[in-house]
Amino acid sequence: MFLRTLREDPADAEVPSHKLLVRAGYVRRAAPGVYSWLPLGLRVLRSVEEVVRQEMDAIGAQEIHFPALLPREPYEQSNRWTEYGPLLFRLKDRKGADYLLGPTHEELFTLTVKGEYNSYKDYPVMLYQVQTKYRDEERPRAGILRGREFVMKDSYSFDLDDEGLENSYRLHRDAYIRIFDRLGLRYVIVAATSGAMGGSASEEFLAESPTGEDTFVRSTESGYAANVEAVVTPVPEAESIEDKPAAQVHHTPGTPTIETLVDHLNGAGLGREFTAADTLKNVLVKTREPGAEEWKLLAIAVPGDREVDFKRLEAAVEPAEVALLDEADFAANPFLVKGYIGPKALQDNGIRFLADPRIVPGTAWVTGADQADHHVVDLVCGRDFTPDGTIEAAEVREGDLAPDGGGTLVAARGIEIGHIFQLGRKYADAFGLDALGQDGKPKRITMGSYGIGVSRLVAAIAEQSHDELGLVWPRVIAPADVHVVIAGKDETVREGGERLAAELDRAGVRVLLDDRTSSPGVKFADAELVGVPTILVVGKGLAKGVVEVKDRATGEREEIDVDKAVEHLVNVVRG
Amino acid sequence: MFLRTLREDPADAEVPSHKLLVRAGYVRRAAPGVYSWLPLGLRVLRSVEEVVRQEMDAIGAQEIHFPALLPREPYEQSNRWTEYGPLLFRLKDRKGADYLLGPTHEELFTLTVKGEYNSYKDYPVMLYQVQTKYRDEERPRAGILRGREFVMKDSYSFDLDDEGLENSYRLHRDAYIRIFDRLGLRYVIVAATSGAMGGSASEEFLAESPTGEDTFVRSTESGYAANVEAVVTPVPEAESIEDKPAAQVHHTPGTPTIETLVDHLNGAGLGREFTAADTLKNVLVKTREPGAEEWKLLAIAVPGDREVDFKRLEAAVEPAEVALLDEADFAANPFLVKGYIGPKALQDNGIRFLADPRIVPGTAWVTGADQADHHVVDLVCGRDFTPDGTIEAAEVREGDLAPDGGGTLVAARGIEIGHIFQLGRKYADAFGLDALGQDGKPKRITMGSYGIGVSRLVAAIAEQSHDELGLVWPRVIAPADVHVVIAGKDETVREGGERLAAELDRAGVRVLLDDRTSSPGVKFADAELVGVPTILVVGKGLAKGVVEVKDRATGEREEIDVDKAVEHLVNVVRG
Repeated sequence: MFLRTLREDPADAEVPSHKLLVRAGYVRRAAPGVYSWLPLGLRVLRSVEEVVRQEMDAIGAQEIHFPALLPREPYEQSNRWTEYGPLLFRLKDRKGADYLLGPTHEELFTLTVKGEYNSYKDYPVMLYQVQTKYRDEERPRAGILRGREFVMKDSYSFDLDDEGLENSYRLHRDAYIRIFDRLGLRYVIVAATSGAMGGSASEEFLAESPTGEDTFVRSTESGYAANVEAVVTPVPEAESIEDKPAAQVHHTPGTPTIETLVDHLNGAGLGREFTAADTLKNVLVKTREPGAEEWKLLAIAVPGDREVDFKRLEAAVEPAEVALLDEADFAANPFLVKGYIGPKALQDNGIRFLADPRIVPGTAWVTGADQADHHVVDLVCGRDFTPDGTIEAAEVREGDLAPDGGGTLVAARGIEIGHIFQLGRKYADAFGLDALGQDGKPKRITMGSYGIGVSRLVAAIAEQSHDELGLVWPRVIAPADVHVVIAGKDETVREGGERLAAELDRAGVRVLLDDRTSSPGVKFADAELVGVPTILVVGKGLAKGVVEVKDRATGEREEIDVDKAVEHLVNVVRG
Repeated sequence: MFLRTLREDPADAEVPSHKLLVRAGYVRRAAPGVYSWLPLGLRVLRSVEEVVRQEMDAIGAQEIHFPALLPREPYEQSNRWTEYGPLLFRLKDRKGADYLLGPTHEELFTLTVKGEYNSYKDYPVMLYQVQTKYRDEERPRAGILRGREFVMKDSYSFDLDDEGLENSYRLHRDAYIRIFDRLGLRYVIVAATSGAMGGSASEEFLAESPTGEDTFVRSTESGYAANVEAVVTPVPEAESIEDKPAAQVHHTPGTPTIETLVDHLNGAGLGREFTAADTLKNVLVKTREPGAEEWKLLAIAVPGDREVDFKRLEAAVEPAEVALLDEADFAANPFLVKGYIGPKALQDNGIRFLADPRIVPGTAWVTGADQADHHVVDLVCGRDFTPDGTIEAAEVREGDLAPDGGGTLVAARGIEIGHIFQLGRKYADAFGLDALGQDGKPKRITMGSYGIGVSRLVAAIAEQSHDELGLVWPRVIAPADVHVVIAGKDETVREGGERLAAELDRAGVRVLLDDRTSSPGVKFADAELVGVPTILVVGKGLAKGVVEVKDRATGEREEIDVDKAVEHLVNVVRG
């Protein structure tokens, strides 16, 4: 076995799966976010692929394989050549033609189905591939959890109508549940936004893990769970504006922050107590549509006790880009008085002005008066200002009401392992994918897109399945069933171990044999680190006719008659 | 089944395998030299991979998987970043770092073994991968026969000494023989040159095919076979120079070609008959060492009845590049009198001058006299000129003596499907790969490199295994065992066909079911085109209780009792 374990954690490893997979000899780094799979790692990866394939085949999806090296044109046509931005690895061939390394394959699948099929009789169809994909992540991290070259299962469904799409979506959802259940993962299914895909219904499968990159929230009472980007703020009822006092501008010297403002107001003898939640913060950003040259200003109003969550903001304006203003932007728009921006100047100057959904008609706010050291109190929404619309950009906090009204939200972290998504007709429109209907008329196809991060799953399982000694693989994807440790240099012990390993192999048990001359201590430690579910120790006991069988997960050991060892282990392996 | 056959050959298809694999719905072109694998094609590809894996595992090689996206540094260190020239796909990541798409992985394998192993006890080791590779071919051709993205099995052996390397080489050679035999290929093993790899012993496995890109020669009598680039010219015995007449310059107006020269001489009353073989042609080229800026002139002397074979020349000067002279080169070297170049001016002006091995001391030649319209007769090698060495650049012709002295050579064409190669210490030297020997001293490792063109094999098998109706797959890699054709729209026939297909499937037979409503003629033609080894026709005969079983390869048909059909087919499939 080409295997060498390491005593030290790799210097760049931040998370347990990365540390352990490198230390135990499963993967090695070749470049940032680019990993080599050593024999043990490759076995685990292939087993995961196999589970995925079985369940995809079971729902009638057919496997296909597209190139990773792709011509620019289809991605130009779908606008993703531009939309993907620096995430895309681009290159030119010797003739100067533009190519890219495929990040996902919507374009190719759509074009292929269009090329092969034309009648309604051909549909529905579901196609998938297990393929190496490329994304030039800005910050590749955590080993194979977020790589720049990675293995993904992506599938696509093609249906004649929305009902068909819903059915394909449900088939995938069920298949994903079976896949992740078989892999022994703890995961949640959360409502998700769509990323750069464009479309409607979308859910993510997140493996629960404190090291996960994705924050999600779940309800303390109902089954609600959602990606933070997808949380929809419950909208309060509008209030009457009739009985609200008139807006009044106050001199509030030296109060550019919410905290200084609230302090000032509470010391100003206005006869009531203010909190940050009574203030309205107007945050300026700029956005740019894909392919556009110009940035446009966008103002976002949120209650002063909440920050703008940039990831939620990005998801809300997608596919446009969003950036903070720089000094030049403020200089070019002198009506923006930093720290004292109010709705009036924004709306007077034609700035698009979107408000948090909590800012409903009739609510009264303290906000900037568009001149330094001045704020306006009792500025009433629907009376004194009217936003151009709402936006889901305010941070989501633990304790917020769940959108379905059941309980409050708590935060958790997860690793995105799957994503299912009703794409709709975006790509069918871009490429003119129609089927000739029974009535002789063309019918636009509707699509779904479904991904599983196959190489990431190896890391996600390792994140969930390890202890202080090393990895603890579920048997279904373990690199072997039994790790045979020959503990002793005695010739009889060695021969006994080798004979048992050979017999197990003949019985169809996948064996990893450690026949190194290292000390038993080193070998035991390595067996724990490598994480094969069952460890067979052949040592001194052999003289008395016994060997030791240890369960890696529970740590339980039993002595077994050497003559019964193979039969016993076959039973253990078969469960 | 996501499958659509085409009636027309693809416009860009030159060879049968390309036409048939596209028409029968196995592959589709995504870009020049870049193909998508449709479900049928992917099944064949995976079966080929599986045979390759089994035989590699059987010789104790361990599977591993390297990235395709590779950093520049290791290829810089081995000098291949430069040597590969425009064959390499190069790209930059978002930070501007240089990457390449791996064409082969010597560097990564060497570095990985160096990273994991350090003691003589760890050796020998053989590692392999089945991986997607990239080469920016100038003229991708013949579909998947020569693609720019392709699947290759590459393996590498690491040994402590030459004897070990020979053993690893022999193990691979035997494994390759088993692989190609199992795949039912007709192939030859030829002595080969090394390509850009550098090193010593090397053999190629060529699938015999008139459409192959590689020309090889074989002896009419002995078992000798070699790549044309590797043919070594038998050296004639040197002749005595004592009795040779003195060299004489003749006025030979208007004779810049061999033909005009021979005609002139034979009409000049010299008292003997001249043939092209009596003349010496001095061909000028220029070469450039890898990484060098300057081109250097090189003169090659060959008997006038032979051309210089550019591929043999390239192989002979490798890793240097070679190119023809342009007008500027002639202008810069006025002593080169086109059509009348002779050894004298070349050697007087310090041009490196290499001769075909047939030009031995004592042989007399007619050649250029370095002035227009003049040639010299009886210029004797070893007396009047002395080449700087020999070069294997003259064309090899049918009828030439075999280098081993047995018979003469005949030409044939083949497709390179495998290459085994004793690399030696080139990469171990480049990366300092040593093992700590038993004596405590470092020992430099010696390597072998072994490739199989896995995706190319699919095309090579198709080239050898088709007829005028379509593909004829060997069962071991066929996309299915039985192609069930439902011939008739009758409900009973349809149900009967579907039932048999389901029963076969349950019996472990891989079934392709054609249940389209097309005419039986279309379906029969498609079954022949697709090339599954056994065709089961369920049609009108069902009323009389019989179905038809057809062998795709032989065309034999038999009627079988419907009740015995499954049992019969299981026996056919199991052989």
